[in-house]
Amino acid sequence: MLTANYLGNQTIGIREADPSPPKAGQVQIEVAYTGICGTDLHILHGHMDARVKPPAIIGHEMSGVIAAVGDGVTGWAAGDHVTVMPLDWDGSCPACRAGNQHICQNLTFVGIDSPGALQGLWNVDADLLVPLPKTLRLDHAALVEPVAVAVHDVRRAELAPGDRAVVVGGGPIGVLIAAVARHEGADVVVVEIDPRRRQAAAAMGFRVLDPSATDQVAWVEEWTQGAGADVAFEVSGAAAAVLGVTNLVKVRGTVVVVAIHPQPRPVDLQRVFWRELRLLGARVYQRADFERAVELLATGVIPAGELITEIVPITGTADAFAALESGRAMKILVNVSGGTA
Amino acid sequence: MLTANYLGNQTIGIREADPSPPKAGQVQIEVAYTGICGTDLHILHGHMDARVKPPAIIGHEMSGVIAAVGDGVTGWAAGDHVTVMPLDWDGSCPACRAGNQHICQNLTFVGIDSPGALQGLWNVDADLLVPLPKTLRLDHAALVEPVAVAVHDVRRAELAPGDRAVVVGGGPIGVLIAAVARHEGADVVVVEIDPRRRQAAAAMGFRVLDPSATDQVAWVEEWTQGAGADVAFEVSGAAAAVLGVTNLVKVRGTVVVVAIHPQPRPVDLQRVFWRELRLLGARVYQRADFERAVELLATGVIPAGELITEIVPITGTADAFAALESGRAMKILVNVSGGTA
Ligand SMILES: [Zn+2]
Ligand SMILES: [Zn+2]
Repeated sequence: MLTANYLGNQTIGIREADPSPPKAGQVQIEVAYTGICGTDLHILHGHMDARVKPPAIIGHEMSGVIAAVGDGVTGWAAGDHVTVMPLDWDGSCPACRAGNQHICQNLTFVGIDSPGALQGLWNVDADLLVPLPKTLRLDHAALVEPVAVAVHDVRRAELAPGDRAVVVGGGPIGVLIAAVARHEGADVVVVEIDPRRRQAAAAMGFRVLDPSATDQVAWVEEWTQGAGADVAFEVSGAAAAVLGVTNLVKVRGTVVVVAIHPQPRPVDLQRVFWRELRLLGARVYQRADFERAVELLATGVIPAGELITEIVPITGTADAFAALESGRAMKILVNVSGGTA
Repeated sequence: MLTANYLGNQTIGIREADPSPPKAGQVQIEVAYTGICGTDLHILHGHMDARVKPPAIIGHEMSGVIAAVGDGVTGWAAGDHVTVMPLDWDGSCPACRAGNQHICQNLTFVGIDSPGALQGLWNVDADLLVPLPKTLRLDHAALVEPVAVAVHDVRRAELAPGDRAVVVGGGPIGVLIAAVARHEGADVVVVEIDPRRRQAAAAMGFRVLDPSATDQVAWVEEWTQGAGADVAFEVSGAAAAVLGVTNLVKVRGTVVVVAIHPQPRPVDLQRVFWRELRLLGARVYQRADFERAVELLATGVIPAGELITEIVPITGTADAFAALESGRAMKILVNVSGGTA
């Protein structure tokens, strides 16, 4: 089988490997599609070398079909369509014991800390499987993981129907948050500085705002009759966006910190204090979020077709990384086994 | 009557003034004691000149006895012991309409935006009165306002019995938060860099930590068996404390932003994200907090005697400001009318 590997030195290499049979408790998945995301780009650039030792098969957004079932696995059969929730927790740390296994203090993230889905036949612990209905196209199903992120972020925000939500950053996660929030009955605006991304979000029916052309604070004030937005999602990762986002929300409003901020960022704590704001970190997802993501994709709530810019064969994985890097793509999938959706 | 006035130019001046009778809807209070706080120091230093126009009678932490009742006031009588909740909201802005009158978008703060309690006979809207039991000493009752701040902060944190709470900053508000949190059943530690304040907190029975001598993160890790604290209160106002406080709390833990931070502060958003933390702004109080503060003082939960460092006559108000500024005092009261507690 072919595998796509992070080889260090900012290089992705395709290698031939012999598949191994699933161990007890595992299933072997014929991987259909694997999406590439910003985290994978960080791996490529060596930012995560402390966790990812080359050569490493990466990839954690995927869909596939069970090819074989290991000893002791019940409830799964060859031919089942599945995706993988790539979180492996220890079950014993204080976070796990408090019910927050998804952010276990010793979390193993599959596809980063252990081998991922850019391989034709992938052995995975059956515990991590999430079933997919056969009515859901396998290419669309490769979006379950990022959609689950968006579902988790919206749930964390406790968004209510009729709420007004600002999504700061119109990349794939931003657009998915906007789609989930809209489906939950919120009125949504996407703030995005890049014209291509703004256009893509607009094409999916979202109201968009160019922060370099429009005074966003004044715009939001008018939109909300002087109250401010109920919720703002900080998805941009930009320092300037963090400093501005607290000015967009109402008294007792919520800011959800979705993006990665490698450096401490100046935050307007005076505004946090003055308006009694709530800033919430939101990371990955829980099983309910994954299941909800499957449902939202299966029922067509998520504009999956518009989000998937391109599908490349596994031999084109390095090109896919380059295309994602350039910003000209929203979501690129690797067709790992050469099948069709 | 004597009044203490902010005269501009970092000066407090004592002036003689004629008392006026209460207008309709007002009561006239013979002010017993008025406490001086950090906000009053900010006024003295001219930081709030946009709001406070000299000469201005300031002071908003007080206790007193009703001297006269204006037309149309029911439910109050001369001789009643009272304090004033110094918030005057418009009732019509989006925050008020959503039930958050205490942080009305057009809030008038009595004693800052309108005349305060450093005067012998003070006329106040009857709406703002909060009753005091006669069993509560009037000097202790001058602490109701800051205690209400602490009650509000602890309530905002949703602190539960058995929780572990870190109070960063051991000034008057920090110690009051610690006292309220302890009464709610939390296990509390006060982090304070100043040895006099640390000693004062220790004398009130609080566990104290010197962050310049002890690795607080390691200490809290050990204290909480590797989990982190349930709640941390940022009461110091220091940039370094803000940057460090996110390392003190557990997965899904809470940081309450109590202090004023005039500049945006670097915040470790990576930690906020990684642990799904919750940062909450907490400002002033609601009526329930004020009433609870009266109860906590009346039942001796608050170490009022230890907190009140000094009581000065109104002619000593300028000295009281200087003493507070020097850091050698926790809480200084002005005995406005010359009576005894
Ligand atoms: Zn764990
Ligand atoms: Zn209002």
